[in-house]
Amino acid sequence: MRDSWATFGTDLHLDAKLRTKGAAGLRAGLMDALREAVRTGRLIPGTRLPSSRGLAADLGIARNTVADAYAELVAEGWLTARQGSGTRVAQRTEPRRAVTRTTPARSIRTGPAHDLRPGSPDLSTFPRAEWLKAARRALAAAPNDAFGYGDPRGRVELRTALAGYLARARGVYADPERIVICAGFVQALKLMGPVLHARRIREVAVESYGLDVHWRLLADAGLRLPCLPVDDAGARTGEPANLRGAGAVLLTAAHQFPTGVPLRPDRRAAVVDWARATGGLILEDDYDGEFRYDRQPVGALQGLDPEHVVHLGTASKSLAPGLRLGWMVLPENLVREVVEAKGMSDWSSSALEQLTFAEFIESGAYDRHVRAMRLRYRRRRDQLVAVLAEQAPGIRISGIAAGLHAVLELPDGGEASALRAAAWQGLAVEGLARFRHPDAEPGRDALVIGYGTPTDSAWAGALNALTRVLS
Amino acid sequence: MRDSWATFGTDLHLDAKLRTKGAAGLRAGLMDALREAVRTGRLIPGTRLPSSRGLAADLGIARNTVADAYAELVAEGWLTARQGSGTRVAQRTEPRRAVTRTTPARSIRTGPAHDLRPGSPDLSTFPRAEWLKAARRALAAAPNDAFGYGDPRGRVELRTALAGYLARARGVYADPERIVICAGFVQALKLMGPVLHARRIREVAVESYGLDVHWRLLADAGLRLPCLPVDDAGARTGEPANLRGAGAVLLTAAHQFPTGVPLRPDRRAAVVDWARATGGLILEDDYDGEFRYDRQPVGALQGLDPEHVVHLGTASKSLAPGLRLGWMVLPENLVREVVEAKGMSDWSSSALEQLTFAEFIESGAYDRHVRAMRLRYRRRRDQLVAVLAEQAPGIRISGIAAGLHAVLELPDGGEASALRAAAWQGLAVEGLARFRHPDAEPGRDALVIGYGTPTDSAWAGALNALTRVLS
Repeated sequence: MRDSWATFGTDLHLDAKLRTKGAAGLRAGLMDALREAVRTGRLIPGTRLPSSRGLAADLGIARNTVADAYAELVAEGWLTARQGSGTRVAQRTEPRRAVTRTTPARSIRTGPAHDLRPGSPDLSTFPRAEWLKAARRALAAAPNDAFGYGDPRGRVELRTALAGYLARARGVYADPERIVICAGFVQALKLMGPVLHARRIREVAVESYGLDVHWRLLADAGLRLPCLPVDDAGARTGEPANLRGAGAVLLTAAHQFPTGVPLRPDRRAAVVDWARATGGLILEDDYDGEFRYDRQPVGALQGLDPEHVVHLGTASKSLAPGLRLGWMVLPENLVREVVEAKGMSDWSSSALEQLTFAEFIESGAYDRHVRAMRLRYRRRRDQLVAVLAEQAPGIRISGIAAGLHAVLELPDGGEASALRAAAWQGLAVEGLARFRHPDAEPGRDALVIGYGTPTDSAWAGALNALTRVLS
Repeated sequence: MRDSWATFGTDLHLDAKLRTKGAAGLRAGLMDALREAVRTGRLIPGTRLPSSRGLAADLGIARNTVADAYAELVAEGWLTARQGSGTRVAQRTEPRRAVTRTTPARSIRTGPAHDLRPGSPDLSTFPRAEWLKAARRALAAAPNDAFGYGDPRGRVELRTALAGYLARARGVYADPERIVICAGFVQALKLMGPVLHARRIREVAVESYGLDVHWRLLADAGLRLPCLPVDDAGARTGEPANLRGAGAVLLTAAHQFPTGVPLRPDRRAAVVDWARATGGLILEDDYDGEFRYDRQPVGALQGLDPEHVVHLGTASKSLAPGLRLGWMVLPENLVREVVEAKGMSDWSSSALEQLTFAEFIESGAYDRHVRAMRLRYRRRRDQLVAVLAEQAPGIRISGIAAGLHAVLELPDGGEASALRAAAWQGLAVEGLARFRHPDAEPGRDALVIGYGTPTDSAWAGALNALTRVLS
C-alpha cells in the first residue's frame, strides 16, 4: 500500500499561486489534490497517508495546514482516521474512470442548411437593446420583496400590464387577479391536466390537427382525447356529437394550428353555447393571435365568456420561446386550483424576467415590436405567395391571413415525395400528416411552411430551396 | 329594445385622440366601446344596433369604419347579423358585473413588524448592479439560438460554469452533461418524484425534521415517506433498520434543516455504503452549502459517489429565491429520464436568466457575492450569540456553524409560550415543532431563528424583539 502513496507523493506539488494565498489556499489546494488522486484511482482505498508532520515537511508548509486538510477530508468521507492506524483512504471511495468534459458552448451547431419548420419566430429579431433597457428599469424599480419567494400567480406588475394589453389587443376580459404567469404554453397545459382531472373531467376534445406534444401533456394527466374534425372553417364545434362526452375542448380559435383558418363565427358561438349548456371548459390556445395581416386580429374567444374559457397566451411567437413566458387567464372558479398547481410545480416564474416583461409592455416597446414583426412576417408571406405563383403555379396556398406559417396543398401522394426532395435540398420542413390526430380522417397532402423561422439573411436561400423542391 | 341603444348611443363618443389615428384607430375605439357596453350590460342581448350609415353620421366618421367594426364584432361573436333583421347584440353575451381591478403593485405590504423566519436570505443584498452588468454581457454575447426552444437540460454556458464552480466550491463531481438546470429546489423535487416512481421506488426516507412542502411534493408522486431520525450528528443513517425498504433518501447532509448539524463522517460513509449495497439513491439537498463560518464548507456527499447521489443545488439562498434558479447533478443513468420530465414540465428554464447567471459566475461576481454574504451572515450570527449570552443566558444555541439560521433551545413547554410572546411583539418566528415529521418522536422545545432574513436596517429591531420574547 505504501507504494501507492510513494508514486503519488513524489508527484505532489502545490502550485506557487496557492502559496501566496496563505494557509487557507494551501489547505484547499492540498484537499483538491488528494480528492483528485482518490477519484482517479492514484490513491487506492486503504492507502495509508504519511503523517501530517511528515507531509508538511515534504511540502514545506505548516503541519497544521496538513492536519486541517486531513480532518476536512475525514469529515467529507474521503479519508478515515483511527487511533493507532493513522489516516487512510476510505474504503468506499472507488476509483472511477476520468470523464472527459464536453467542449463548452458556442460551437457551431450543424442543423439543416435551410429551415422552414413552423413554430418559431425569427430568433435574430429579438429586441436585445430594448429588452436590456427594460431590465435596467425593472432592476432599479423592483421592491426588495421581488427577490423573495413570491406569489405563485406571478408579479402583480406583469399581471396588471398584461391585463391592459390583452384587453386592448385581444379583446380578453383580463382581471389581474385571474391571471397566472407560467413558463410558456407547455407549462400551462401541464398545469391544466391534473386540474381538469381533479374536476372529474376525463375527456378533452382536441382538434384533428395539432401538436402531438400538447396531446401528450394532457394524456399524461390521464385524459382521453377524442378528435374534433377540422375543416376550412376551423373545428366543427357546431355538431353536438363532436363534443358529446367531453368535459373540455382545446381550440386554436384565432388561427388553427397548423391549417391556419380562423374559427367561423357560428362555430365560435356554438362552442360557447356548448360550454354554457354543459358546464364545459374551453382551453383557448392563442399562440399567435397578434399576427393577422389582412384585417384586425380576431378577438379572443375568452371575451365572450370569461367563466367558461381559459385563455392561454405566450410570448414565444411574439418575442422568443427562450424567455419561457406565458400566461393563463382563468375563470374565477379555477384560479385557486391552478395557483396551487403552479406553486407545487416551481413555486413561481422568475421575478426579474416578469418585471422586465412588464416594463417592456408598459413602455410601449412590446406594441412596437409586435407591429414591426407583423410587417416583416407579412412581407415574407407576400414573397412566398409571389414566388410560388411564379415558380409553382399549381400549388394552392392556404392559412395565410395570419400567423407565421402557411399550408401548401399538394397533389395526392405529393407530401412524401416533397419531403424526400426537401431532404435532398437540405431543407427542413414538415408535412401536414405529422400534425394529424391518430383518429382523424385521412386528409389532403400538404406541407406546413414556417416562413417566420429563418433569419432575414437565410430567407432567400430557404425560399429558393423550397421552389426547387416544388417545381 | 331601442331604449337600450338610445341610452347608450347618446353617451357614445369617440376620443379625439382616436381621430388622429385614422380609420383603424376609430374602428378599434368603436369596437372597444361596443364590447365594453355589452360586457357591462349597457347593451343587452338582442338589442338592435343602428345601421352603419346612421351611426357613422351620428359620430361623424366614415360609414365603412362602422361597417368594418360591426363585421369584426360579428366574427368575434359579440354581434349577429341576419338579412332583414339588422345587426344585434348576440344572445350569448350575458351581461356581467363590472369587476374592480385590484390596485397594482408597489403598495406597502403589511407583514409582521419583525421577521426572523428561516428560509430566506436578506433580499436587500441582491447585487442589482452586478446582475445587470452580467445581463448586458449575456444579451450581447448570446447566439440567436439562445432565444429559441432550447435543450431541456438548460444552456450549456451555465452548465459549464456551474460544473467548474461546484467542483471548486462544493467538491461536486459535475460533468456539464449530467447537469439539468431547473426552477429552484421545488421543481427539482417535483421532477424527481415521478422519475423515482417510474423506477419502482415506493419509499423515500426523509429526515425527521424538514419542510412539509418538500414532503408533499414527494407524497404527491405516490411515494411513502418513512421517517429517518435526526440527532446531534445528523440523520441516523448508520442503523440499517432506518433505511430498510427505502429506495431513496432525502438528506440535508452539509447542514441539516432546520437543526443545523452536519452529517457526521461515519454516517456519510454509512449512507453511501447503503446506496451501493442496495442500489438506493441519495437526494442531497445542498441548499446553503456555501455558508459555513468556522472552517471550510463540508464538501458535498455527491463527490463520494456520483452514481448514487443526486446533488440538488439552488441560488435561492446564495442569491435570491425570486430568480427561480436551481440545478440537479445527476447519476449518468438518470439523466435521460430527468431531462424528459423537465421538457414535459416547462420545456426548459429561461435562457436569458441562465446566460446571465453563467456570466455572473464566470466573471467572479458570484464568488465575491458569496464571500461578502458569508461575512455579513457570520457577523449577524455572532451578534445573535453575543446578545443572547447577555440577555438570555439560559438558552443554548445550536446549529450555528453554518447557514442562515440557528436553533434556540428552550425549557420544556417553552416553545408555545415563546411563540405567543413573539406574536405579541410582532415578531414572526417559527417553532421547531413546525418542522417535525408526523411520525417523529416528540422532541425538545426550540425556536428556529432565520438571522439571514431581515435587512440590515431591520436586524437590530428584530434582535431586540427576540430578546424581549426570551428574557
